[in-house]
Amino acid sequence: MIDILSAPTIADIKAAHQVIKPYAHCTPVLTSSIVNDRTEASVFFKCENLQKVGAFKFRGACNAVLTLPEQEAKKGVGTHSSGNHAQALALAAKIRGIKAYVVMPENAPKVKVAAVKNYGAEVTFCEASLEARESTLADVIMQTGATPVHPYNDARIIAGQGTSALELLEEHPDLNVIMPPVGGGGLLSGTALAAKSINPDIQIIGAEPEEADDAFRSFKSGKLEPVYSTKTIADGLRTSLGELPFGIIKKHVDDILTVSEEDIISAMRFIWERMNIIIEPSCAVPVAALFNNKERFKGHRVGIIITGGNVDLNNLPW
Amino acid sequence: MIDILSAPTIADIKAAHQVIKPYAHCTPVLTSSIVNDRTEASVFFKCENLQKVGAFKFRGACNAVLTLPEQEAKKGVGTHSSGNHAQALALAAKIRGIKAYVVMPENAPKVKVAAVKNYGAEVTFCEASLEARESTLADVIMQTGATPVHPYNDARIIAGQGTSALELLEEHPDLNVIMPPVGGGGLLSGTALAAKSINPDIQIIGAEPEEADDAFRSFKSGKLEPVYSTKTIADGLRTSLGELPFGIIKKHVDDILTVSEEDIISAMRFIWERMNIIIEPSCAVPVAALFNNKERFKGHRVGIIITGGNVDLNNLPW
Repeated sequence: MIDILSAPTIADIKAAHQVIKPYAHCTPVLTSSIVNDRTEASVFFKCENLQKVGAFKFRGACNAVLTLPEQEAKKGVGTHSSGNHAQALALAAKIRGIKAYVVMPENAPKVKVAAVKNYGAEVTFCEASLEARESTLADVIMQTGATPVHPYNDARIIAGQGTSALELLEEHPDLNVIMPPVGGGGLLSGTALAAKSINPDIQIIGAEPEEADDAFRSFKSGKLEPVYSTKTIADGLRTSLGELPFGIIKKHVDDILTVSEEDIISAMRFIWERMNIIIEPSCAVPVAALFNNKERFKGHRVGIIITGGNVDLNNLPW
Repeated sequence: MIDILSAPTIADIKAAHQVIKPYAHCTPVLTSSIVNDRTEASVFFKCENLQKVGAFKFRGACNAVLTLPEQEAKKGVGTHSSGNHAQALALAAKIRGIKAYVVMPENAPKVKVAAVKNYGAEVTFCEASLEARESTLADVIMQTGATPVHPYNDARIIAGQGTSALELLEEHPDLNVIMPPVGGGGLLSGTALAAKSINPDIQIIGAEPEEADDAFRSFKSGKLEPVYSTKTIADGLRTSLGELPFGIIKKHVDDILTVSEEDIISAMRFIWERMNIIIEPSCAVPVAALFNNKERFKGHRVGIIITGGNVDLNNLPW
């Protein structure tokens, strides 16, 4: 049994891959000569926006739910989230045939609430504060006996998120940089564990908005620092870095780069227009970091993880 | 040597595939459980919106340009187009290292003109009428000795467009329906030739906007009928069906379905939101036909060719 509060191993990530394979898409890796010309690098986009529920989050949630012991599983799983993790957990629970209890803030976008309900989850609304979310979830857990599944501070989740890099490196073993965005740190830590186990020389670089640079500051200072502002357009990256991911990041990540809001929007639009895929602002963050640091990446073979594509088409940032 | 005014054979399509393979993407085939649930069918989307220049048109143009005899090629190639064929021909000429002369109407969107110029083509502007386009192209051909490459009334183009169905059936040999949209007819005829040669029992169904239903009327009457209106939002399908494609369509296509403008827009938005890919209105046409004819496609394994993704993000239809 995996200890959910210790770093997973490459064996855990490979086991997670076997668990989720029948349910998750092996997402395509796209290339663009326009991006390669602009960066003078060879760039490989691992398209998790084309994953089930439209985000890499399905990998971790699917692994956590499907590996839960039967005794716990039968009482269901719970989480609080207004984002992709809620949908991911709801679909994973539906696949296992168990209940998912999702606490959502009462101001959550209707389309996200509908998506979560559509996967059969039971939604409980609460006030829009972290405190209210946590205490409401605690109540739900108490009443139902469901197992809480944290979106990133959980080894099963981190192992699941690492499977994306596993697939990317199976297809392109000669990458020398992989750059995912960093929010809570589940994807960055899982990617670092997977990639460094396969090739210790590969550089793992996190990308983060300047407006929510807690991972950057924590990485530089060596101790976990809180996020001060949550104003960034990259809604998936507004969370604070988790403790478990931070331990892994300190050990295995080479650098963290930050980018401005304008650069995020402009990179997002560039990818929509030139690659014809819908990417959410969070995954435009590493694209912007790539565009802003041309000298650093010139001549390299760079993997970018496109984390998701869930955006509101009525509210585009241009 | 292929006779450009006779129907290509499956051997021509396979030869075209070998010619273009080093330059064209083997585009991914995506599936969506949400689409499958809605239609009660198994639907496979061949994503030519992720092709070079963002459209299947690159396949045909690439085959035509790369198979041109050296004597002709060195004087360049020419066409009139304000759409994807212009970009496709420009990139194919750039790959071969020859000139492309493109006649564009003076009201062509700036972004399209810029894209064509970006691939190194020489652009000549003319009035926005078919007459002016044809006579201007004739002048350019006269002056330069370039070889004109028609967007669909050309066996080399049809053979190239057929390679998309070839790849789709290599990956999913058990499809029993393939449904491309129909404008000039290059894609529909190439798809029908490729698919029926591989499996004579596969149904080939064209999809067309009601607002530009010349292929539907021609198919029903058995003689080539002109397009009366070009008001459809599906800008790639405003052209009249070509003679060469029509001969092939009469022989090998099983049916043509038409859809309304509202259904096109609603299907387009559905795919953007649920599949996170950018598709242009033209390829929402077969998606709308699929949604509108549930009983007909229920239980079938349906291939849809997503023809392209070139849209103006400042001018979306919702």
